[in-house]
Parts: sequence; structure tokens; C-alpha cells
Amino acid sequence: MSSKLILLSVFALTFTCLALAYEPAPLQGFCVADPNSSVKVNGVVYKNPMQVQAEDFFFSGLHLRGNTSNAVGSKVTPVFAAQLPGLNTLGISMVRIDYAPCGLNPPHTHPRATEILTVLEGTLQVGFVTSNPENRFITKVLQKGDVFVFPVGLVHFQRNIGNGYATVIAALSSQNPGAITIASAVFGANPSIPSDILARAFQMDKSLVEELQAKF
Amino acid sequence: MSSKLILLSVFALTFTCLALAYEPAPLQGFCVADPNSSVKVNGVVYKNPMQVQAEDFFFSGLHLRGNTSNAVGSKVTPVFAAQLPGLNTLGISMVRIDYAPCGLNPPHTHPRATEILTVLEGTLQVGFVTSNPENRFITKVLQKGDVFVFPVGLVHFQRNIGNGYATVIAALSSQNPGAITIASAVFGANPSIPSDILARAFQMDKSLVEELQAKF
Amino acid sequence: MSSKLILLSVFALTFTCLALAYEPAPLQGFCVADPNSSVKVNGVVYKNPMQVQAEDFFFSGLHLRGNTSNAVGSKVTPVFAAQLPGLNTLGISMVRIDYAPCGLNPPHTHPRATEILTVLEGTLQVGFVTSNPENRFITKVLQKGDVFVFPVGLVHFQRNIGNGYATVIAALSSQNPGAITIASAVFGANPSIPSDILARAFQMDKSLVEELQAKF
Amino acid sequence: MSSKLILLSVFALTFTCLALAYEPAPLQGFCVADPNSSVKVNGVVYKNPMQVQAEDFFFSGLHLRGNTSNAVGSKVTPVFAAQLPGLNTLGISMVRIDYAPCGLNPPHTHPRATEILTVLEGTLQVGFVTSNPENRFITKVLQKGDVFVFPVGLVHFQRNIGNGYATVIAALSSQNPGAITIASAVFGANPSIPSDILARAFQMDKSLVEELQAKF
Amino acid sequence: MSSKLILLSVFALTFTCLALAYEPAPLQGFCVADPNSSVKVNGVVYKNPMQVQAEDFFFSGLHLRGNTSNAVGSKVTPVFAAQLPGLNTLGISMVRIDYAPCGLNPPHTHPRATEILTVLEGTLQVGFVTSNPENRFITKVLQKGDVFVFPVGLVHFQRNIGNGYATVIAALSSQNPGAITIASAVFGANPSIPSDILARAFQMDKSLVEELQAKF
Amino acid sequence: MSSKLILLSVFALTFTCLALAYEPAPLQGFCVADPNSSVKVNGVVYKNPMQVQAEDFFFSGLHLRGNTSNAVGSKVTPVFAAQLPGLNTLGISMVRIDYAPCGLNPPHTHPRATEILTVLEGTLQVGFVTSNPENRFITKVLQKGDVFVFPVGLVHFQRNIGNGYATVIAALSSQNPGAITIASAVFGANPSIPSDILARAFQMDKSLVEELQAKF
Repeated sequence: MSSKLILLSVFALTFTCLALAYEPAPLQGFCVADPNSSVKVNGVVYKNPMQVQAEDFFFSGLHLRGNTSNAVGSKVTPVFAAQLPGLNTLGISMVRIDYAPCGLNPPHTHPRATEILTVLEGTLQVGFVTSNPENRFITKVLQKGDVFVFPVGLVHFQRNIGNGYATVIAALSSQNPGAITIASAVFGANPSIPSDILARAFQMDKSLVEELQAKF
Repeated sequence: MSSKLILLSVFALTFTCLALAYEPAPLQGFCVADPNSSVKVNGVVYKNPMQVQAEDFFFSGLHLRGNTSNAVGSKVTPVFAAQLPGLNTLGISMVRIDYAPCGLNPPHTHPRATEILTVLEGTLQVGFVTSNPENRFITKVLQKGDVFVFPVGLVHFQRNIGNGYATVIAALSSQNPGAITIASAVFGANPSIPSDILARAFQMDKSLVEELQAKF
Repeated sequence: MSSKLILLSVFALTFTCLALAYEPAPLQGFCVADPNSSVKVNGVVYKNPMQVQAEDFFFSGLHLRGNTSNAVGSKVTPVFAAQLPGLNTLGISMVRIDYAPCGLNPPHTHPRATEILTVLEGTLQVGFVTSNPENRFITKVLQKGDVFVFPVGLVHFQRNIGNGYATVIAALSSQNPGAITIASAVFGANPSIPSDILARAFQMDKSLVEELQAKF
Repeated sequence: MSSKLILLSVFALTFTCLALAYEPAPLQGFCVADPNSSVKVNGVVYKNPMQVQAEDFFFSGLHLRGNTSNAVGSKVTPVFAAQLPGLNTLGISMVRIDYAPCGLNPPHTHPRATEILTVLEGTLQVGFVTSNPENRFITKVLQKGDVFVFPVGLVHFQRNIGNGYATVIAALSSQNPGAITIASAVFGANPSIPSDILARAFQMDKSLVEELQAKF
Repeated sequence: MSSKLILLSVFALTFTCLALAYEPAPLQGFCVADPNSSVKVNGVVYKNPMQVQAEDFFFSGLHLRGNTSNAVGSKVTPVFAAQLPGLNTLGISMVRIDYAPCGLNPPHTHPRATEILTVLEGTLQVGFVTSNPENRFITKVLQKGDVFVFPVGLVHFQRNIGNGYATVIAALSSQNPGAITIASAVFGANPSIPSDILARAFQMDKSLVEELQAKF
Repeated sequence: MSSKLILLSVFALTFTCLALAYEPAPLQGFCVADPNSSVKVNGVVYKNPMQVQAEDFFFSGLHLRGNTSNAVGSKVTPVFAAQLPGLNTLGISMVRIDYAPCGLNPPHTHPRATEILTVLEGTLQVGFVTSNPENRFITKVLQKGDVFVFPVGLVHFQRNIGNGYATVIAALSSQNPGAITIASAVFGANPSIPSDILARAFQMDKSLVEELQAKF
């Protein structure tokens, strides 16, 4: 097979999936990313639909507790398109979140997804804040079997207020929802946001801002 | 308040949410349906955003096993916009599915949603069929913690092949995904699809079709 | 031209059309697939917009009756993006359907399109079934010049109830609408769906299911 | 039933269909407009989904030649949501276009739809012009059974170059595609666009512009 | 006119615009909100398209410097659908932003819009932070005539680093973009987010959090 | 690195951005086109997200008056994705328009965008025409600081009716809005639209049409 043919064949494959970016697959209704490809720069290589297999729509391990030994005491185990290639273009994904006692999934936003979660075990306080100018804080304590929704783009969090571990299964309305942890984006940006900007925005001393920036 | 004012105020409320049909809420990022309204014909009454409360984004009971004492031995407990009004316009929903031993969630399609599920307990065989002309059957046995995806519009099923009950949490990429159970749509339509049509389509005797139609 | 340049030029072309996947063409409002490319694996190679010609927006032969000598006595002649490359990304397509006397276009769904048709000749009974739990059968007899709509994702069919041939022109709201013929997806899947699953779902004897599976 | 209840019930109905503006119907996959309502100001009244009937998805008369006795010798018979209420929200529509000998469907755009047509009888020259700065004219002579596509928003026309009448069936990718006949929008606007503006834009004498304005 | 007729007429108007939520207006390509209606609960009353006037597409005053005498020294003057009713459903809006010397438009997100701005006068430092896990800070100094883009949902800011006042005109890809000022959403939520949550998320002393909460 | 690896790496990059065609970037919320690539056929080469820089979201020069020494006395300076690569996929763009005294931005449409503008200096008459059959001309005189909206797809214009130069900043709801100048598309198409077609459509003598065609 000539080099040019290989190229065009890559191109051809590209457009099989391209159509999917606009609406589900021309032939089979999916567009499987191949995370096992030996070549991944900043994206994924797509499979020939005829070579797609059940494994492409499959992920295992969501029954395992994530490692919550970290600063916030929580761990998100994602099942996004990067982990489950068959999700590509389908507009949905899933995560498991574990919370150590007192663990916190700190305030964050998903720029491209609403989140719905259900509590598998434990007791959580959850909340989100509406946008300007109200900034209403809407919060609820959730028990096992409870379900809660965080509308797209709003700042939200969950924390474990029970005695033991807590676990949720959550779904997001994008295969690549993105996440912006507020503290990290603001105080942990790389390079740092000038400290006087944050000092003014947060009405803090500049030295305090720099202290915070050193932590993130 | 005059009758006309009341009317217009209804109208006004309508459009608060209307904008949400196109993109998330103008003021606060949500548009809560009110399932407790005393008036529900074929839709839902929307709440004043300022009166929205945490309960509007909340549903409880997903830890409870659904009643699987039915012909197929499975039960879907939905958390759609009808059950959780805050989901309205947000493009996602969740269900719990329980399977008695040997239980089956029979072949069906969601005309407006992809489905992703994770197994909480039990062992399931799941599968979907690609569209014409391949009609490829893609199937997998799932254990606890496994995740699987059913692309939008494709015929799919799950059945319990373990020894005990099985349970999944699934999410769908619509707040109103719809469901078409194939056997019910075909043999249980009301009124019945003429039996000679189904006889020809399914290459069955007309008497057999009528026998099936009597069952659904 | 170096190999790398060829590659990048392929890449460049890709994104000319990519923008189109999201909204119509940056320069000229279209993104023509090239079905005559010597390389087609599972997709299509896109043309340089400057080399696009009137033929790219053209298809001929829709005045010809399709061959209805088959099990169901009907034939769909598609004009999708695969047949008319200029349709790519534009969200519409057209088909001609012919029906021999008593011919049937058997129950099927289009996972990604609504269908509208008009009868050119003959008399047809058409119908569709609404989703769960109602499964209402909505049906109508159509004569020449009548128009009918099948909403996206719903199971529908047409059959010839006149004395001679019948013909319709239909349009679909996708350039790749997809089609799932219910009987084929259920009983003709490849490999077969386990017969006991279908037996339970359709409340049929397993032997009957296997008999049906042998036919599709 | 109190006045307020009636109001809310209207409101409730509103939102049954509202959800459809975003994605197809929550319960049944459609949202039927009722053009026969006694009250129509500038819109349509929606039916209770449970009262929807086959007639709501039906239109008759597309076999009849439109009256082409007009200045341009062509006639478009539309089947939009206004004529076929079941089309509402479904993103597709159909028209029949008749052309007297030498008849012209003059240059126009559809701001919200791509058009695909097939020739039922006759011989047509069709064409469209790409956008700035190329303004390429892409044209083709069509015979019976030929299909052609006019991408969304581009200026296009058809004219009868055969000896007799010509007829096409066309479909558009919107239930309300809109149409802007260039000559009417420019020279027939009401009130008139100032003649010196058009004189400069079209490099015509102002008196000629006014002469043209008098004709449209 | 009976009460019921009034109701239905409201209903009818509703759907004139409803179709617009999905795609631009059926008759005229717009759907004008009426901010001057005597009745506004949480939304806007829509005008009869035939009564729409040029004023509905018009707003004045964007040449006036906003009052920057506030804690951050900047002022956003919005032209959203609430200020310019004709913007409704059209997916775009505009703002003027003024900055006193050293003024800051503090870190914020628009949950539903990308922002593009151009500097009319002054010198600004602008920046945004990419999402997890990189949190890259991308920043630039802008002079008069410079243009910069803030992708949807990302945290961004502008501050005046010149000697005098600075002014920008910005556009957003939504008629209701929403805004979440980070400091206000986090420390100024109403009621307050529990201080221990913020203390942990921001790695601050709880007393400091409470001090900050008192300021917002 | 082998040739195949290079190819796949191109492919991989492709899909990094591909996901953006459907929703904003998987990793960072953007997809920067690289207009400086040595290879540009009809599209643009995308940058590795990790190599994206502030300059990719930046454009300069919008403070400079465009050269209005042309037939219509106006000049549009575009900031589309072609000029500002970071705009790619983000659904917005900006232009500066300058008008010499009496200058006209002649009647045109944007097939894929609504336009909102604000007057920086001068006095303009602006207007648009609604679609068939009303063809209502909606017009307004704008002064400095005034804002006006032209709904997607409608024919619109601006002309300078003040004594000096006029300038606007406008934004469009697409990164590639497209533009169809009516006079150029109709009389300046290349090759020409047959003159008898235009003669009939515009009710002009064929000789006049040909005279106009010679001018565009």
C-alpha cells in the first residue's frame, strides 16, 4: 500500500467519524476512539467501524473505591471518552466519586455538562450556587438512594458528612465534560495569575494570595 | 389582578423557561418543572426561578429494588424530568434497573438518548444491534463495576445471567429519553397493526401474529 | 511534494470540512464528499471546495422503479450522502420507494431522522406507533398526492393496498438517517441474539424464535 | 373549572410541547400544531398529545398542479408546519413546485434550510451561487428523475427549459424554512428601501430603481 | 372576546415564538421580547410579529462610560435580551466594559458563552485559565484595537494596566450568557457556603473564610 | 518516526479538534487553527493544544480605519477564524466596518449568523427586510452608542447619513458567518447567471441585466 493511499485512508476514516460530530454514525451509530493506539498525541485514533468490538463500549472497575488519600479526601474515577472510547460523540459519560470521612469534592464547574448523581452509600451535603447577581446557594443533605442535579456551568460541590466512606455514581451530559476546580484555576494557575489581581478580586492581602498560590 | 393579567403572567413565565429550551436559564441556569402543580394535563407547570428550592433538584428512593414480579422479571425505576423537575431542559436523566434471576430488560430503543450503565450487583449479558444492513450483534457479559454504552436509537437489551438479583444504575442523554419496547410496539400496538402486515414483516403465520397480539 | 506536506495537506482539507460539521462551509457553504475517490475504507474523501462541481450536488435515476422482486415486495432507492456527496453535513436526504402490489416496507425506525413522504402513484396504508407506555397505532390510507409524516425514531411502515404498483418520494431530516428494520435487527442479527432472550421478550417458544432466526 | 385552572392548563400544555423545541416529544415523539383552532394570531394552538390523530400528520393535494399564471410562471405549493401541523418541531418539510413553459422560480434564499429536489416531469436549469468573495455560479440541467441540492442560505433558482410543464418535489431541512425572494426583498420591500441605497448597491440610476420598485 | 379565547390567543402567540427557540422565526426570522409589558413575572411577554418595530431591535447608550466607582473599579453595561428584546433566541449579545485606572473585571465564567472583545481605549491585561488538570494561564497585554477571545466556560479576567480609563466592546455567543463571578459565587453565596468547606477547598483558615464571606 | 506514525499522529490531532466541532475542547476548551502553517489548501492546520499560546487568541488592528476608497464607500475588516485562529469552533466573531461620507454597506445576508452592531462614531441608517410574503422593511437611524440587531439570514444594510466618517463594531454569531452581497451574487456571479433569468426575476430588460453584469 503506497504512502499516499495510507494517507487517504486515514483521511477517509476521519470523515466516517466526522459525520458523527454532527449526528450519530452514518453506518452504525457510533465512532469508537482507540485509546490503545500506539500513537496518541493530543487525541485519539478512530477505529474502522467494521473492526469495532464489544470491548470498545466497555469499561471495568467502577466498583472499586478510588484512592481518597489526598488533600481533599475525595477521588473521582472518570469514564469519559478517553477511558471508554465508544462514548465518543455520544454526549454522555459516567464517574464514580469516593469520599473519605469528611472528604470534599471541592467547588468546581463543568463547562460543558450538567451532572446528575445518586448516592450509593454514605451521607453527603451537596450544593450549587446560581449565577450573578443572586448567587443563591442551593443545598441538600443526601442519603443512600437520593439523586441530585447540578445544572451546567454552575459552581457545585459535595462533601461527606456521614461517619464512614461515601460513594456516588454520577453521569454528565458530555463525553468530555471538562472540569474547573475553582481553587486550582484561581490560585493554582500555571504560571500564576498576578497576585494583585487575585488580591483585589478576593479582597485579600497580596501576601495571603501568594501564600495560597504556593499551596496549589 | 384581572383575568388578562393572570393570562399574561402565565405567558411571561412561559418565556422565562422558553429561553431555556434553547440554552440554559437566563437568570439562574435551570428551569424547574413543577410536578406538584394541581394542574397537569400533558405537561408541567414551571416554577418562578426565585421560588425554586433544593427539593426541585432532588429525588429519593433509587436505593430501593424495583418490583420485578412481572412477565420479564425486570423493573426500570426512572428519574426523568417527570420525576425530578429540575432536570427539565438539561439533557440528562438516570434510571435504576433491577433484574430478578433470569430477568430480562427486553429489546428496546431510546429514540432520543444514548445510555450508559454500570453494574452495581450481579452478572448481566448486554447487547445491541447495529443498523441496516449489517445488523451486527455486539454483546458482552458484565460483572459488578463494569460499564457499557448503548448508542442512541439502537436496539439493545440486558438480561440477568447470574444466580441472584442484579442491579444497574444507568444514565441517558436526555431528560425525556423515550423508550420503545420492540415487542410491545410491534405486537402490542393499540389498536393493533393489521396482522397480515406483521405476518409478512416477520415471516410468520397470520394466526401466530394474532396469538402474539393477544399476549401484549 | 514531501510526504509530510501531503499529510498536512490532507489534514488541512479535513478541517475545511470540519467547520462544516458544526455549521455550513466557511467559504462556500458546502463540504462535498467524493465517492469516486480510489480510497474509501469506511468514509469518504472530501474535495477541495474550489474543485467542487455541479455534479457533486447531483444524482440521477429517481424516476426509475426499484426492483421489488424480494420477500417484502418493496424497494427503497436512497439518495443519501453516500450517493449524493454534496449532501454531506446538510441534514437532509431523499428516497424513492416502490411497492409491488401488496408490497410492504416493513416496520422500521430511522434513529436519526424524521421522514415525510408524498404518494406519486397508488394507494398505501401507512402507520406509526408511539412510544411506551401508550404504543398508540396511528394509521392512514394515502392516495396520490397525499403527504404523511413519521416522527423521528418511531416504528413505522407503508404497504401497498391498491391494485397496481405504488411509488412515493420521501425525504429524511439527515444525510445519513440510518434504518433499523425491526424484524432484521431482532431476528436477523449477526451473530444471533440468544433465542431464549427473544423467546421471553416476544413470548414465543424458543423453537419458533430459532425458526424465525433461520429466515432472516 | 376555574379561570385560573384553564390558564394553567394552557400553560401545562405549552410545556408539553416546549420540551419538544429542544428535543422530540416527551411522551410520544411529536407536538402537533392545530391550524384549525378558532384562535390563531401569529402562531398555532397545540393539541393534547392524547387527542392527536392520523389527520394531524397528513396533508393532501400535492398531486395537483399549482396555478402558474403569474409573473414568473411558477408556483410553490408548500407543506410546512402551517399546512401539516404534525411537522412542528421535526425539522423537515416538503413542497411541490410547478413551472409553466419558460417558468422561473426566481433567485431566492431559505434562511433556515437546505433544499433537495427531484424532477417529476420536464427539464429544468437549476443553479446556485456560492458566497463572497467567489460568487461561483454552479448550474446543471436536470431531467426527470434527477436530484439536486441547494445548500442552506445560498441564492438559487430553477427554470423550465423544456417544452411543456415541469414539476418537482422538493424537501427542506426545516418545518418553517422561510424564503426570501431576492427581487421582492430588495425592490419590493414595504415600505421601500430608499432608492438611492439601491441605486448605489446595484449601480443603477435612481430612476431605474424607482421604476423597479413600482413593479414589485 | 371570551376568557377562553384570550387564553388561547396567548397560547397561540407563545408558539409563534416557540418555534424560534428551535430555529429562527417561522414568518419573519425573529421573536421579540417585550420588556415594556406591564406584566413581567420572571420572563418577558412576546410581541405579535406584525407589531414588531425597529425599536425592538434597538438599544442606545453604549457610548456612555459606565460608573466604575465600585470595589473593583470596572463596570459592565449589558445589551442582553433583557435590554434589547429583539435579541431573543438569536444567540448573540454585546456589552461595554469600562475600567477605571487599575480597574479589574474580576475572574469570572460565562456558563453559556464565548466572549470576544476589542479595546476601544486604554491598555488591559487579559487572561484565562484552561481546565483541569493543566490550569494553564494564558495572558496578554492588549492595546487599542486589539481583539481577544475567552473560550466558553473558562475563568477569565481583564484589568486596566494603563494610566487612564480603558474601555472595551465585547460580544458573547448567547443572548443570555450568564456570569459567575468567582469570588462572589464562592465567598458571597447567599446563604453562605459552610465555611469549613471553603476552608478545606481553598486551604485557608476557617476564620479567614468567614472574614472573606463577610466582605462579599 | 515512521511515515505511518506521522500519518496517525496527524489523525490523532484531527480528533482532538474534532470533538470540538461538536462541543468545546476535551482538554482545554479550544481548538486553535494555525493560519501560519506552511500548508493550507482550503483549510487550516490545527495546533497541538499544549503548544497553543496567547497569540492564538489575539488579533490586532481593529482601531485602524479600513480603506473605504471603493465603489460603495465602506470597508469591512473581519476578525473571523481565518484571522483569529482561536475563534475556531467557538461560534462568534467580530468585524469593524468603516463608512466614508455617504458610504454604504450594501444589502447582503449572512447565511449562518445574526449580527449585532454598535456605532462608535457617525450617523447611520440601517435596515433589514423580513422574509416572504411580508418583506417588511424595518429601519432606524443610529447615532453613536446605539446598538442594532440583524436577525440571521435576512437582507440588511447600513449607510452613512452623517457628515463625516462613521464606524461600527459588529459581532456575528459564527466564527465563519459567510456573506452574500446581493448585487454581487445576482449580477456578479461567475460565470454569469443567464441574463434572461435575471431579466425575468427583476422585470428588467435583458440588455440592462447584461449592462449590470458587466459592472459586477
